[in-house]
Amino acid sequence: MKYIIILLFAAFVSNAQVKKEQLNLMPWPQNINLTAGNFAINKNFKINVTGNPNSRIFAGATNFLRRLDGRTGLFFGQGFISKINQTPTAELQINCVQAGNIGLNQDESYKLEIQENKILITAASDLGALHALETLLQMLQNDSSKYYFPTATISDTPRFTWRGLMIDVARHFQPVDVLKRNLDAMAAVKLNVFHWHLTDDQGWRIQIKKHPKLTDLASDGLFYTQEEIKSVVKYAGERGILVVPEIDVPGHASAILTAYPEMGSRTNASTLYEIERNAGIFNPTLDPSNPKTYQLLSDIFDEVCPLFPGAYFHIGGDENEGKDWDANPKIQKFKKKNKLETNHDLQTYFTMQLVPMLKKHGKQLMGWEEIMTKDMSKQAIIHSWKGPNEGLPAGHSVAAAAKNGYQTVLSNGYYLDLMQSVNDHYLNDPIPHNSTLTTEERARILGGEATMWTELVTPATLDSRIWPRTAAIAERLWSSQDIVDLESMHNRMNATSYRLEELGITHIKNKDVILRNISNNQEIKALADFSNVCEPLKIYSRNAGGTEYQMYSPLTLFADACTPDAIDAHNFNKATDNYLKNKNSENKRELVAFFQKWIATNKDLVQLGLNAPLVQPILPLSKSLSEISQQLIATIENKQASNSSKMNELLEKCNSKNHADVELAVYKSLKKLVNN
Amino acid sequence: MKYIIILLFAAFVSNAQVKKEQLNLMPWPQNINLTAGNFAINKNFKINVTGNPNSRIFAGATNFLRRLDGRTGLFFGQGFISKINQTPTAELQINCVQAGNIGLNQDESYKLEIQENKILITAASDLGALHALETLLQMLQNDSSKYYFPTATISDTPRFTWRGLMIDVARHFQPVDVLKRNLDAMAAVKLNVFHWHLTDDQGWRIQIKKHPKLTDLASDGLFYTQEEIKSVVKYAGERGILVVPEIDVPGHASAILTAYPEMGSRTNASTLYEIERNAGIFNPTLDPSNPKTYQLLSDIFDEVCPLFPGAYFHIGGDENEGKDWDANPKIQKFKKKNKLETNHDLQTYFTMQLVPMLKKHGKQLMGWEEIMTKDMSKQAIIHSWKGPNEGLPAGHSVAAAAKNGYQTVLSNGYYLDLMQSVNDHYLNDPIPHNSTLTTEERARILGGEATMWTELVTPATLDSRIWPRTAAIAERLWSSQDIVDLESMHNRMNATSYRLEELGITHIKNKDVILRNISNNQEIKALADFSNVCEPLKIYSRNAGGTEYQMYSPLTLFADACTPDAIDAHNFNKATDNYLKNKNSENKRELVAFFQKWIATNKDLVQLGLNAPLVQPILPLSKSLSEISQQLIATIENKQASNSSKMNELLEKCNSKNHADVELAVYKSLKKLVNN
Repeated sequence: MKYIIILLFAAFVSNAQVKKEQLNLMPWPQNINLTAGNFAINKNFKINVTGNPNSRIFAGATNFLRRLDGRTGLFFGQGFISKINQTPTAELQINCVQAGNIGLNQDESYKLEIQENKILITAASDLGALHALETLLQMLQNDSSKYYFPTATISDTPRFTWRGLMIDVARHFQPVDVLKRNLDAMAAVKLNVFHWHLTDDQGWRIQIKKHPKLTDLASDGLFYTQEEIKSVVKYAGERGILVVPEIDVPGHASAILTAYPEMGSRTNASTLYEIERNAGIFNPTLDPSNPKTYQLLSDIFDEVCPLFPGAYFHIGGDENEGKDWDANPKIQKFKKKNKLETNHDLQTYFTMQLVPMLKKHGKQLMGWEEIMTKDMSKQAIIHSWKGPNEGLPAGHSVAAAAKNGYQTVLSNGYYLDLMQSVNDHYLNDPIPHNSTLTTEERARILGGEATMWTELVTPATLDSRIWPRTAAIAERLWSSQDIVDLESMHNRMNATSYRLEELGITHIKNKDVILRNISNNQEIKALADFSNVCEPLKIYSRNAGGTEYQMYSPLTLFADACTPDAIDAHNFNKATDNYLKNKNSENKRELVAFFQKWIATNKDLVQLGLNAPLVQPILPLSKSLSEISQQLIATIENKQASNSSKMNELLEKCNSKNHADVELAVYKSLKKLVNN
Repeated sequence: MKYIIILLFAAFVSNAQVKKEQLNLMPWPQNINLTAGNFAINKNFKINVTGNPNSRIFAGATNFLRRLDGRTGLFFGQGFISKINQTPTAELQINCVQAGNIGLNQDESYKLEIQENKILITAASDLGALHALETLLQMLQNDSSKYYFPTATISDTPRFTWRGLMIDVARHFQPVDVLKRNLDAMAAVKLNVFHWHLTDDQGWRIQIKKHPKLTDLASDGLFYTQEEIKSVVKYAGERGILVVPEIDVPGHASAILTAYPEMGSRTNASTLYEIERNAGIFNPTLDPSNPKTYQLLSDIFDEVCPLFPGAYFHIGGDENEGKDWDANPKIQKFKKKNKLETNHDLQTYFTMQLVPMLKKHGKQLMGWEEIMTKDMSKQAIIHSWKGPNEGLPAGHSVAAAAKNGYQTVLSNGYYLDLMQSVNDHYLNDPIPHNSTLTTEERARILGGEATMWTELVTPATLDSRIWPRTAAIAERLWSSQDIVDLESMHNRMNATSYRLEELGITHIKNKDVILRNISNNQEIKALADFSNVCEPLKIYSRNAGGTEYQMYSPLTLFADACTPDAIDAHNFNKATDNYLKNKNSENKRELVAFFQKWIATNKDLVQLGLNAPLVQPILPLSKSLSEISQQLIATIENKQASNSSKMNELLEKCNSKNHADVELAVYKSLKKLVNN
């Protein structure tokens, strides 16, 4: 595949000054043709808008101007772009044929032509024009003294119409400003659906005026007013992003039942429900046999639906194990009376009651894949999430849903909270090459959605869990299926990562904040260096059991500063492979430099620990890495035989998952070296 | 004075393990008695509240718990503190006699007793208890493996009742989350008044439902809804902070007149008013002869006053030069008819019309010192701001107002936008030692207020302009007049600075963001090192004339990353003084190390500049510093005579203010060395 990509690049670069490989475009556009020339940017740079766009293009173009301003330091004279044909002679001309609508299956295509004295953006609507502006910003190049755009022609359109990010604001509440900066980042990588997981066992996060008890009793004061919801929806709309709300029922109901215990499925009314403080799957479930349950949900939908102009409403529907239903004779009786054999049938009955409540407001019901039962309406959208972790083949339900006649969205493989490598997400295709689906079935696969569950994610760490990895997922959903070169993806993702700071994304800067706290205001270099070879424990093995940390725990630990794809591990793995292929002195030197660094880091961490209690949990792992580094230096320099029992003992210490909630991301390469 | 402080410390520390000098308390409490012992903190640490407090103490105590949690990583079991006597056996007992009211002259005193197994906070009200919790957090100590509190008894109460921070949200709009984190920081240093400068020539920032034109036409969409205003006021109230709104009239009126030109003083109605994009003093002024002006203001006050439960309302009143009044025959006629001789008289007439409009809502009028004219009501509060920059003695009007029978607040000397050293602010006392005021007059001096004007301050840089310097101002307003040791202040301010990150203050982390942008995603160490000897141009000499940068300019330059009190300059100045006192080899070595660092930094910056256009403006100054460093090394090492004409030429290059909007903060010390 790498070969194909290189060929693809090689075909176009002969006359260009800037080569395609140098461009940090992400998602990579469908077609790009670089030519030999540059558009020089100066202080007089201006933008003009023509056609019949929605007014969101004015804010979008103004934001573009300010971002280009901030990068170049030119501080353009043009202030606010606020009307059609305001500056007819402007260098950047944006023409939109018509006003874009926020929703699925819109024409989001654009054409971007960068000439030496002119830049032309033409798009069916402002939605495509906003994408074009993001691409143009990504085209920015520089030499030592100035910034410029290389001349080029780009035509582009997305592969999938649903390119989403879900944020769970129930487990850890995420304030409005956190969401807004993430909407900015979504727009920057051409994502267009924000799925807002508003309720769960751990909190009810949306004001319901008719039922203030929901937030009074079940939010700890952490919720969005309806004004705030509107402001987020408006902000998203200005960026071309559809917002899909989720009210998760009938399970995940600890919070709603804290406010309304009488609608719960427990037989003993005196058993109080409480806001859940731990992580896991819990029993509290709405009572589907109680008419009041439907009245409450109808009231809620009547308030929530009008806040979201989009056509989709997510009702959750996942992880209801039905234990409280089984234990309740009244519900068992109800099942019999309604000829509902299984709890799945009962849940389908429940869900089908919601369909007309939502239809009344023009909303199509969407739910997690558990709602796909034999009697479920074909109008429902199936959200595929289960996979190998749940004992199913990857992407199983997305294909099943498409075959069953449902529209569907893939999230299995895009679970950001699993702390897996971006490579896994990137290569996870909603319609893989080997798919046997028909054209008609494929058309039902709307796209995919990255999911950010927040059991272990605070507002301070949210961005570092989502970004930059979600840029790679965005590329999978936007770009051609053939764009799969991992090295290219990593390079472009790293450039994208740095640019996300411009939008206020905190993934880089908040890492230092956590490390400063751990260091107790000492120099953080050693901690930062060590964090670059450590990754948080993966696939729910951190906080296993869900009770070590509570939802109110501040999560200021070393694992919270670490991320998947530890950067030095990535580089060390390459150095190891090089060395194992060719043990020349340069490759040796490169490996030994890593080992020397880790030995020094350990010394510094020990020193730091003298005045920093939070450094203590890290030391055993750092010590193990230092010790094996010393041994490996000796081995590599041929002073000592490798593969001794001592080496294996040291190696296994480096495989420990018992320290500071992290694992050494260099373990596999160390093992290769030891066993070499 | 240093001597007195040292004696004061020495008197108490004999038996204590932790010495007073080691404590990073800021503001320094009125009385502290350290004893020999520790309170060990563990996971079971709990808080209990008794007495009759306002419910703000519950949120305050819960926040305290989470902050202590985050620092120690202990992750306490106790979640939310929500009622009286919830956990009677808790180690930390908070007793408040009564509920506190937000406002002036409240009893804010507290007593904090840390015993080995118990911590007792007793306070007249929750206001004092919140202060005690901040002091307790500042008492936190650690060894290598654990955190603890040293046993001590502290009793404390503020010197002044008005301890304020003003933020100008007109020049650069500051979103709600920016304000909230600054309110957290204010509470952390015991400030209790947030003065919200809501309107100015550059924008109208508050929704007025009866007059939507104000925000539709004069805010660029950047304003607070009334819901948002309420949420800020509530947030402040939960932290014991009074919010004083300012609607600045009759001058500073470009924005309001953009919406309502018919109420302006210009004769030519066709001369359109526009939102001002530059910085400076501008002519647009309300027409005091037009009854509609008063109707509009009355409408505005009717909506604004109820949003702010406090008893004070700031009407600005500053910098009206009266040019448009002079040019308008109708206004001249009005003056004559009403026997108003001067424009001051006319402005007093205008201001006096506002008094009853505000009184109707129970508000006392406050204004900048220009409102203090002979006929001004003695009920008005005079806000003193002029000083040496305006050709007046420092603090002139604060004493004058007190003598004239006015309550008054000092801001001259606390202008954060002047980019002066914190030392200047710290030693600026509302009632200096040499004051000749009577006891009664002194009582009228309510306190002081740091003012953050934002012509050159964006949401990304606001925190770095306010913090940590405002902690020193807070100490001036809270602590005993005799606490003036600069070295101690700097040490404690630096510790406070680091702790502000816990509250989300961005002053440290956003510096790196700016430098990463300047570096074009290269290593920022050289830029950071150079920023540590550079300071932004002072006292309005940056953006002189007010037209180089517009209010929409993003301000992502090197000067925006630099701050007053450049840290390495501070250290270099000390090293220089040491060397000049004693030219021993150690002192030589210390100086030479600085010079070598700057030579290396310059090399790195040149290298960085090869791929970073925004580094170019910095290079001339860096080169000058490198060149003089080379010369001074030679001189110090006795290889070359000093004070040559070449040296003086190099020295003057280091005094340049023509590069990158910064000056070298080491110039004075370099000069001492050259002239030595």
